[in-house]
Amino acid sequence: MEAFSDGVFAIAITLLILEVHLTGSSSASLAHQLEKAWPSYIGYVISFVTIGIMWANHHAMFRLIERTTHGLVVANLLLLLCVSFVPFPTKVLAQQLRIGGQDQRTAVLFFSGTYVAIAVFYNLLWRVAATDHRLIAAGSESEADKITRAFRFGIPGYALATLLTFVAVPAGLGLDAALAIFYLLPRRGGATIEA
Amino acid sequence: MEAFSDGVFAIAITLLILEVHLTGSSSASLAHQLEKAWPSYIGYVISFVTIGIMWANHHAMFRLIERTTHGLVVANLLLLLCVSFVPFPTKVLAQQLRIGGQDQRTAVLFFSGTYVAIAVFYNLLWRVAATDHRLIAAGSESEADKITRAFRFGIPGYALATLLTFVAVPAGLGLDAALAIFYLLPRRGGATIEA
Amino acid sequence: MEAFSDGVFAIAITLLILEVHLTGSSSASLAHQLEKAWPSYIGYVISFVTIGIMWANHHAMFRLIERTTHGLVVANLLLLLCVSFVPFPTKVLAQQLRIGGQDQRTAVLFFSGTYVAIAVFYNLLWRVAATDHRLIAAGSESEADKITRAFRFGIPGYALATLLTFVAVPAGLGLDAALAIFYLLPRRGGATIEA
Amino acid sequence: MEAFSDGVFAIAITLLILEVHLTGSSSASLAHQLEKAWPSYIGYVISFVTIGIMWANHHAMFRLIERTTHGLVVANLLLLLCVSFVPFPTKVLAQQLRIGGQDQRTAVLFFSGTYVAIAVFYNLLWRVAATDHRLIAAGSESEADKITRAFRFGIPGYALATLLTFVAVPAGLGLDAALAIFYLLPRRGGATIEA
Repeated sequence: MEAFSDGVFAIAITLLILEVHLTGSSSASLAHQLEKAWPSYIGYVISFVTIGIMWANHHAMFRLIERTTHGLVVANLLLLLCVSFVPFPTKVLAQQLRIGGQDQRTAVLFFSGTYVAIAVFYNLLWRVAATDHRLIAAGSESEADKITRAFRFGIPGYALATLLTFVAVPAGLGLDAALAIFYLLPRRGGATIEA
Repeated sequence: MEAFSDGVFAIAITLLILEVHLTGSSSASLAHQLEKAWPSYIGYVISFVTIGIMWANHHAMFRLIERTTHGLVVANLLLLLCVSFVPFPTKVLAQQLRIGGQDQRTAVLFFSGTYVAIAVFYNLLWRVAATDHRLIAAGSESEADKITRAFRFGIPGYALATLLTFVAVPAGLGLDAALAIFYLLPRRGGATIEA
Repeated sequence: MEAFSDGVFAIAITLLILEVHLTGSSSASLAHQLEKAWPSYIGYVISFVTIGIMWANHHAMFRLIERTTHGLVVANLLLLLCVSFVPFPTKVLAQQLRIGGQDQRTAVLFFSGTYVAIAVFYNLLWRVAATDHRLIAAGSESEADKITRAFRFGIPGYALATLLTFVAVPAGLGLDAALAIFYLLPRRGGATIEA
Repeated sequence: MEAFSDGVFAIAITLLILEVHLTGSSSASLAHQLEKAWPSYIGYVISFVTIGIMWANHHAMFRLIERTTHGLVVANLLLLLCVSFVPFPTKVLAQQLRIGGQDQRTAVLFFSGTYVAIAVFYNLLWRVAATDHRLIAAGSESEADKITRAFRFGIPGYALATLLTFVAVPAGLGLDAALAIFYLLPRRGGATIEA
């Protein structure tokens, strides 16, 4: 199951580049066109980093899971359904940031909302696996509890970004970016892991 | 062989998002455009879940298969040929649901027909492997027989969806969706499996 | 190296569907449009089966190879360069078969020529590995010789298809298709292989 | 982590073909159109070979790495972010070589600049792993030092190509191509590796 999930993460993350385009009048200089494509780059970087971190978490979770049930397969599939969806709101976001105007709010809401859905299904997947340590490898219970604690912030974080968008669009998008950067930072007591 | 097949399933399932588009006049608000794209979402979700379940079944089958023959490679390739084809009828379906009118029937027929073909090649693949338990790992015969019994409903199910479309288009598409949901439901006596 | 190669084969084979389109006036009925897209289906099926068989051969070769050299990495990369290229001549072929006319010959030449190049790099790769059984696992020498003999027909086969195209376009394309079908047929004395 | 990285490399390398197009007036003969698409082929080949070599190096590095830290995951993700980006500058380069004129310089700068960024993140990744042999498998230290020495030329090489572009556009692009060919050449004392 992990090889398949890894494949879906890897493909979704790599397809993001297909939505990076030059637009605008081709009479402008290339340098100018490349500059004006900045919303595509922002969308690409935020989505790439976010999916990448989600993959890393997914990988860390499955290292502790030793058995598979039908429920786990289904929860995993629903999560992948949302992860694979990411290139679409990313494209919509880049388009609207370029155009500017009213619809930026809708685009950021759609973008952040997708991440809320992903966070929800992540928690569902982990609950199926970790409640009562049902599917957790013997001896990994305390590591599993650490993941459970770390996951408490995912849904509220992305939900807050979504709500912030109603107040101020840049703040909502900024929080999405900040969450991505936060997960990239070195972790306190981050132990090394066997490769 | 399984790594390659897993790759094809993972790519086919992830490419589905490339066919999700906004269309219609860009003068409408983004919220309106996102709403009007619902046929794309329906096609995406049905095809994603169906391919995902097929991958899970494929994986379960290959856990019991211990040897490979030229015939198995060929049957597997023909199955993957049909699975990889799915993004095309899904795109056609979404286009026609959006347009409405006469051609919706053709689109649903094409969509359901593709799943009939997949079910046929699935059964072919499993027959090559499981007839007289030829390629089945010793000790897994009874598990293999369980799969054989579970597969009896695939071809009739999708064929019925195809036929229903001649009577009423929404009923045909509804049965396709119902089959996807049915396979997602918890299974009676679903034992846990070593990951 | 094999995981990476498997990935490239799997992706190239799955990207083929992105080049299958409906074209023509959208005023025609969908059934008519689906019918007129037959050149896309032909291109899809020939390329899918041919790449699929090449993957199977690649896999069979690497089962016998036990060491890797820089030369093998390079030969493998050149082969993958050609395999990944296949969606482009396949798209060109489908376009020209639909249009009809003079340029069909050029399109089939381009299509068959790509397969000649693939066959050449296949032989190069195998030569790097199998000359004097340099990189072959001990005990697999006779199996390696069998592959060497089987490979004698690849280059002449596709070269003949290319030449035939100068005489008659359908004959050239027909030979490409016949080669694909030939490799799908059951093999004499095809032993079963551990999965 | 390697399976995921391999996937991203394999997908990025295979997506390159999607940017190879025929353009120009379709009234020209197909042979002429195929000929005029040479900038697409050049971009395809340079990017394919360069990503391919980078994958081979990545693979060689990870064979020596035995543990994973959060820092290594992040450095690897940033590297993949740049590798996945390659299809975009490759497309821009092909477009501008076809059009000719002033903007070719910008396109080659953008193309070479992307490779500078990749080389920088490669070095970062390797430093995280190999400084004081922190994450290197015991007994592989001297092999790791060989890689460290080999990597000294990456950043200056691509930076020089970028600078050369300011002087003469073909020289800059030529150096990019020369670097790709250089890495393909047989290596002195290139020992064989267990597959």
